[in-house]
Amino acid sequence: MVKNKKKFQSVAIYSSIKSKKVTQIALQVKEVLEHLGIKIFVSNSSGFTKEFSVRTYSDKYIIKNCDLLIAIGGDGTLLSSARKFGINGIPVLGINLGNLGFLTDIAPEDLTNSLKEITSGRFVKEERFFLEAIINNKRHGNLALNEVVIHSGSIAQLIEYDLYINEEFVYRQKADGLIVSTPTGSTAYSLSGNGPIVHPKVKAITLLSMFPHSLNARPLLVDENTEIRLMLSKKEKAYLSLDSHKNLPLSVKDEVIIKKATSNLTLIHPLDHNFYSACRTKLSWSS
Amino acid sequence: MVKNKKKFQSVAIYSSIKSKKVTQIALQVKEVLEHLGIKIFVSNSSGFTKEFSVRTYSDKYIIKNCDLLIAIGGDGTLLSSARKFGINGIPVLGINLGNLGFLTDIAPEDLTNSLKEITSGRFVKEERFFLEAIINNKRHGNLALNEVVIHSGSIAQLIEYDLYINEEFVYRQKADGLIVSTPTGSTAYSLSGNGPIVHPKVKAITLLSMFPHSLNARPLLVDENTEIRLMLSKKEKAYLSLDSHKNLPLSVKDEVIIKKATSNLTLIHPLDHNFYSACRTKLSWSS
Amino acid sequence: MVKNKKKFQSVAIYSSIKSKKVTQIALQVKEVLEHLGIKIFVSNSSGFTKEFSVRTYSDKYIIKNCDLLIAIGGDGTLLSSARKFGINGIPVLGINLGNLGFLTDIAPEDLTNSLKEITSGRFVKEERFFLEAIINNKRHGNLALNEVVIHSGSIAQLIEYDLYINEEFVYRQKADGLIVSTPTGSTAYSLSGNGPIVHPKVKAITLLSMFPHSLNARPLLVDENTEIRLMLSKKEKAYLSLDSHKNLPLSVKDEVIIKKATSNLTLIHPLDHNFYSACRTKLSWSS
Amino acid sequence: MVKNKKKFQSVAIYSSIKSKKVTQIALQVKEVLEHLGIKIFVSNSSGFTKEFSVRTYSDKYIIKNCDLLIAIGGDGTLLSSARKFGINGIPVLGINLGNLGFLTDIAPEDLTNSLKEITSGRFVKEERFFLEAIINNKRHGNLALNEVVIHSGSIAQLIEYDLYINEEFVYRQKADGLIVSTPTGSTAYSLSGNGPIVHPKVKAITLLSMFPHSLNARPLLVDENTEIRLMLSKKEKAYLSLDSHKNLPLSVKDEVIIKKATSNLTLIHPLDHNFYSACRTKLSWSS
Repeated sequence: MVKNKKKFQSVAIYSSIKSKKVTQIALQVKEVLEHLGIKIFVSNSSGFTKEFSVRTYSDKYIIKNCDLLIAIGGDGTLLSSARKFGINGIPVLGINLGNLGFLTDIAPEDLTNSLKEITSGRFVKEERFFLEAIINNKRHGNLALNEVVIHSGSIAQLIEYDLYINEEFVYRQKADGLIVSTPTGSTAYSLSGNGPIVHPKVKAITLLSMFPHSLNARPLLVDENTEIRLMLSKKEKAYLSLDSHKNLPLSVKDEVIIKKATSNLTLIHPLDHNFYSACRTKLSWSS
Repeated sequence: MVKNKKKFQSVAIYSSIKSKKVTQIALQVKEVLEHLGIKIFVSNSSGFTKEFSVRTYSDKYIIKNCDLLIAIGGDGTLLSSARKFGINGIPVLGINLGNLGFLTDIAPEDLTNSLKEITSGRFVKEERFFLEAIINNKRHGNLALNEVVIHSGSIAQLIEYDLYINEEFVYRQKADGLIVSTPTGSTAYSLSGNGPIVHPKVKAITLLSMFPHSLNARPLLVDENTEIRLMLSKKEKAYLSLDSHKNLPLSVKDEVIIKKATSNLTLIHPLDHNFYSACRTKLSWSS
Repeated sequence: MVKNKKKFQSVAIYSSIKSKKVTQIALQVKEVLEHLGIKIFVSNSSGFTKEFSVRTYSDKYIIKNCDLLIAIGGDGTLLSSARKFGINGIPVLGINLGNLGFLTDIAPEDLTNSLKEITSGRFVKEERFFLEAIINNKRHGNLALNEVVIHSGSIAQLIEYDLYINEEFVYRQKADGLIVSTPTGSTAYSLSGNGPIVHPKVKAITLLSMFPHSLNARPLLVDENTEIRLMLSKKEKAYLSLDSHKNLPLSVKDEVIIKKATSNLTLIHPLDHNFYSACRTKLSWSS
Repeated sequence: MVKNKKKFQSVAIYSSIKSKKVTQIALQVKEVLEHLGIKIFVSNSSGFTKEFSVRTYSDKYIIKNCDLLIAIGGDGTLLSSARKFGINGIPVLGINLGNLGFLTDIAPEDLTNSLKEITSGRFVKEERFFLEAIINNKRHGNLALNEVVIHSGSIAQLIEYDLYINEEFVYRQKADGLIVSTPTGSTAYSLSGNGPIVHPKVKAITLLSMFPHSLNARPLLVDENTEIRLMLSKKEKAYLSLDSHKNLPLSVKDEVIIKKATSNLTLIHPLDHNFYSACRTKLSWSS
């Protein structure tokens, strides 16, 4: 992590949540930033309530004109910001709604101070990579910041697939599904499935079987520049899910390639940002 | 387990699978038993192919007139036999299609000998209990020999519920679902989810969270006479699944009670039946 | 659990801990009980400090003359009480030092009320079984309330053994060791090794491999009346440990039989005793 | 991995095992290489039997004069070769005794062909890093290719420590110990403790708690350039173990720093070397 001196001139505000709390925070952000002489652009795809009656701007406009996006909400809002704005080169700063998130590390009560610090150039920049899923060699911008899941769409319903890593055959497996996650996703769904916690600086992709039929499946970590390829080998229904927000149907003999996307997300953190402090709070590690 | 001397007079044959192999075995069973002077009744809900052109009988007729049901197939056929016939008091004997199952322990090549032994009274009887799921105090014969699963119907989709055991509050949990399984089910879906293996003689029910949101969930075993009660506490979609064959929708505030059913399944095994031998084969335990 | 009306006449006090806090609580217990006209006998194997200057009695005397033992301390003190007094038929009541234990469920601040309630007959009785370890057919009163562990005595040092259950061969395994635990022990060492939580009413023994060499080992639960037999098959050093307080050396070809002991521990609980409430507190389950 | 054209001129032979099989293989290696005009140097720290009566050379001589070390045996011999020769810059090639190892990938029956291929320049080079453990700021060449373990030296005996990563406090933990492993070690002891499998190319260190007192411990992966620091916080006995071959005592307040060593091990593999093929064989993954 590098401390960066660049100041932000044009800042966008976004939330995927429609609630009074979010609007309240958005108003406060607007006030603080305008006071600092920074231009504010509110995303028209946001869920702000009517109290936040300002002119709104298209995602396209924001991507072209802003140098920072402030996401207000939980990790869900941040995932959505990452896919809309982050992937297009806009750094993202997350403000939570009272509960520290792994991605949204500014608390509402620290808002004013944090924004002053950050806009004056005292912040930490962190790069996070996306996974891209390519189905039958067709790219459709299927991106995930947390994880790509290939699954049966159902409980206790097996799919069967052959797994290849960098063109080497790994195994044929029967399972409810397979989670392929980034370090960012290691504290999300993968963690619920007993996957390891992977520090954001580790350049690796985690493969985790869901309810595997065999007892000797274990989480597997491969280098981030690895190409993961799955071939569905049975005529079962299957789906591909991206960050749990998009669900695409798959057919037998479909081939899915999962690899690091070419663009990254740039996260902006306060100087005192600390991954392990978030772990202690979110995972109840003893302090 | 008790060695029993009673001979079987009227034996039903059933399979849920339609394949040449199954029909072949069914013909062999018929031949052996008729040779021994035993009456054969083929279930008309079976999946036998046309080669097995015999008169068939309704489930109702079989339940009334038969004293043994021979299930030909995998554990799926046996589960289906258990729900159709076993629950109504007909002992069930399972013949597998070549791969030892936890419930179907006679191999096709041992068929003739095994049937002679068993029908002459040299067999082992084993009782397995069913779970019954009661939704909002309504009994609808919702039975499971393996497991009842309450789940979100989706990958990475949480449901939230309050769990009560014998009217004592246990916890509020967010998870993809909860597996409630019998010892019989402990080597089925629950095992894929890292649940413990429970010997059939242990009188216990296992509760296993699926992708729990919290890190301190662990498999929990309670006495078989325990009443497990779940209250869905959030307006999320949820489902109740029985042995993965029946899927019932649930609504918020729905209350599900899961407890041991009043009827048991009686399994018939050859004298050399051995649970751990099945474990060694099916789970690749070293011998 | 049955509510019992019998009053206690002669009560012993014991702790394995020497601390001011323990002495303070012991004095309070003495005062409350003497006020109720109950005779007090302090165990001379206790660790009380000099402030608690009363006549003390031998374990033998206490076993002969007392109808209740009050153990003051953590689960360690209770384990020790169980082996000294409980196994000899004296019911045990545990008072913790401020932190709820799984076995010591009376808090110091509830002491006076709880003792009045319990000595007036308003309490719950609960039976817990011990495991006995028999080495090469010699009984030496090797008892464990939590668990028997067969292990290599070292980190990353394998032992190899053949496991038999009720005279049936189960598997040959290489591992750092094997934990054999009671339901009482399921919330102790076994839980740290990812074993399931087993409610005290479940009549089962849990077998859990420690750092097994093979990936398909899983926790295994067998009926409490099961005989577990281990044969060490390699010339490695090995040890047998009982509740982590006694460590016996084993040699190659040594045969260890582990089974339910013939005597039980009777635990006395307040009427509002609740296993799941202890789980919520001790395991941070959400409430 | 890069295909390399350099031929080897002076090759050392080493094994830590004394057995006829090893001597037989060593003789074969000697014959093949001498036939190819390559000079052979047998390590005098080897365990070869008398049948292999050749002049032997000191480790120092070998380190100075050889450009390849052939290790004959299991992964134990290879670990020992790595610490003696590999760390000093000699590339290591492993020949197994019949069972594929993760590190010794040439089978005795492929010996002649493999050696011809490799000495003619057709091989794959792979770098593996060592961990170094520094106790109280004193370096003593405490190296591990697989893992450093800080532990209590005993079963069911807790140690307590504060963990810092790159000077950031992570947590205070009670556990039997902590395994800190390289990707190489991820298929060794760490795997028995349910750790993830980490491909050799992933630049990460895995931290895995052994029998942690808390339920929310999970495997944690950090970047390979991370400094891991442990402070023992209780007056318990503790030990530091390196690849299970060296065991050093620790005292309370001792500070252990674990980080990537400055030297690497260079492994030499045949061209068809494949990590996942070793996984399939060693871990019984289905093929």
